[in-house]
Amino acid sequence: MSDRLHATVLEVGPRDGLQNEARALSPEDRIAFIARCVEAGARRIEAVSFVNPKRVPQMAGAEEVMAGVPRRAGVSYSGLVLNRRGLDRALDAGVDEVNVVVVASDTFCVRNQGCTTAEMLDAWDAIASAAADAGVPAGMTIAAAFGCPFEGETPPERVAEIARRAHAAGAFEIALADTIGVGVPGQVRDLTRRVRAAAPGTPLRFHFHNTRNTGYANALTAVDEGVTILDASTGGFGGCPFAPAATGNIATEDLLYALHRGGVETGMDMEAVAETGIWLGGLLGAPVPALLGRAGPF
Amino acid sequence: MSDRLHATVLEVGPRDGLQNEARALSPEDRIAFIARCVEAGARRIEAVSFVNPKRVPQMAGAEEVMAGVPRRAGVSYSGLVLNRRGLDRALDAGVDEVNVVVVASDTFCVRNQGCTTAEMLDAWDAIASAAADAGVPAGMTIAAAFGCPFEGETPPERVAEIARRAHAAGAFEIALADTIGVGVPGQVRDLTRRVRAAAPGTPLRFHFHNTRNTGYANALTAVDEGVTILDASTGGFGGCPFAPAATGNIATEDLLYALHRGGVETGMDMEAVAETGIWLGGLLGAPVPALLGRAGPF
Repeated sequence: MSDRLHATVLEVGPRDGLQNEARALSPEDRIAFIARCVEAGARRIEAVSFVNPKRVPQMAGAEEVMAGVPRRAGVSYSGLVLNRRGLDRALDAGVDEVNVVVVASDTFCVRNQGCTTAEMLDAWDAIASAAADAGVPAGMTIAAAFGCPFEGETPPERVAEIARRAHAAGAFEIALADTIGVGVPGQVRDLTRRVRAAAPGTPLRFHFHNTRNTGYANALTAVDEGVTILDASTGGFGGCPFAPAATGNIATEDLLYALHRGGVETGMDMEAVAETGIWLGGLLGAPVPALLGRAGPF
Repeated sequence: MSDRLHATVLEVGPRDGLQNEARALSPEDRIAFIARCVEAGARRIEAVSFVNPKRVPQMAGAEEVMAGVPRRAGVSYSGLVLNRRGLDRALDAGVDEVNVVVVASDTFCVRNQGCTTAEMLDAWDAIASAAADAGVPAGMTIAAAFGCPFEGETPPERVAEIARRAHAAGAFEIALADTIGVGVPGQVRDLTRRVRAAAPGTPLRFHFHNTRNTGYANALTAVDEGVTILDASTGGFGGCPFAPAATGNIATEDLLYALHRGGVETGMDMEAVAETGIWLGGLLGAPVPALLGRAGPF
């Protein structure tokens, strides 16, 4: 085929990959990690989180990180934001885009963010409006879109309704996150269709965890459905606090292997990412969940 | 839907799961493992290998294992066979079916089995004929059907040609094995179509390794293509000697999770399998590659 398929892998390692690790990395180490991602071809990176550093010490020093990341044409840095205070910090720090997380189940939203889903949607409206005034694109990640550790299966109608709110406030992108890694490909297909109908024209992104070994199948199913933006974390770090022994995000290097071998281009260097995964495991003092670095390429 | 989908998971843990582990289990432990699989609902089990115990000491005592496995209506035990001597042992030991492995690439076949693919196909003809005379079904597993550690990508035409030979000699089933875990879903779809055309009417089985995190996506793709028989190994044991640090077979418990949540019934008890995976990890003194036992069900 002359028209090769292309997908964008959004590197979330510096944020979701690190925020639950036992060992917190310094801003310097996080800058070095991000620089390695850029070198390996990443063009969208979730670099920082503007949450309260008392609650998530691993994400402290977001401003220092943003001040030190390599600025290069075509590279976009995203910051996670949950409220107006976070947005102000993100704008001051010079992020290229903001990512607002809305948890789809009330119990999980209250435990994670201290407010119900409805309250978080009101916060989203305010953040989206202020971000638009500042000329910075705001997108929404719908967390626990596949299932909740407290409430079980997430009703897909609820996810679609949240997506409708995202769309109404001008989200430049909507992401569906399987935060606790319970989803299966049939759900990916169903949610893709529902969210596209609820938010017509808004690009869709997926965020998968491989907690129960369904993450890569889900990611490839999303691509099969025409989704072209996928989150992944170098090394596969990013365990879930609700399953402490479980592995985390799908690994960037393993996702690249499956995409490249399946004829989908990403512009990224799989082997360089695998080396960064091993390097990161050394910094974190933790085993690397990604498999490509262990198995080697083919 | 009232017509639920159904898939059969062939438990290969007692053979492929154990044959590369550093610690060899006694026949008694292997019988206990098999009994636990039967209790959890497995109805097809690759229990033993009739290869030379000097070459694969982990598989020594196949006769003792077969003498001790629980005999129950509807449970079928398979033995791996590579030559007439192995077949005679398998028939004497009372297996219900024999599995003949033909490696699709010459270099790998010579290193693994001491003969070329063509020579192994001649051996297959002889084994299939003798098994038919004895009234025992013989099936073929085409190993390295997706790729070879020495020759790279396996030409799919070659796999189809081997399948034609299997079909001509009356194979009751043909399995395609991604022995080194390099395959991706597009290959699964392509090979499924080619082998069905080469061996019309012969049931197709797949055998995936998760060496580079594509195994579960491949398995679910096969089901999507209408394949209803999949190999898996409790706990996900079964590392590949060509990638010593890499993980092995797809894990039975994780495959069951994906199938059951996707609406495909198997008749097996996912949580009982996960407990056996943890038990087996204790016997082997090795970390359990399966994720369900760590993460818990949903």
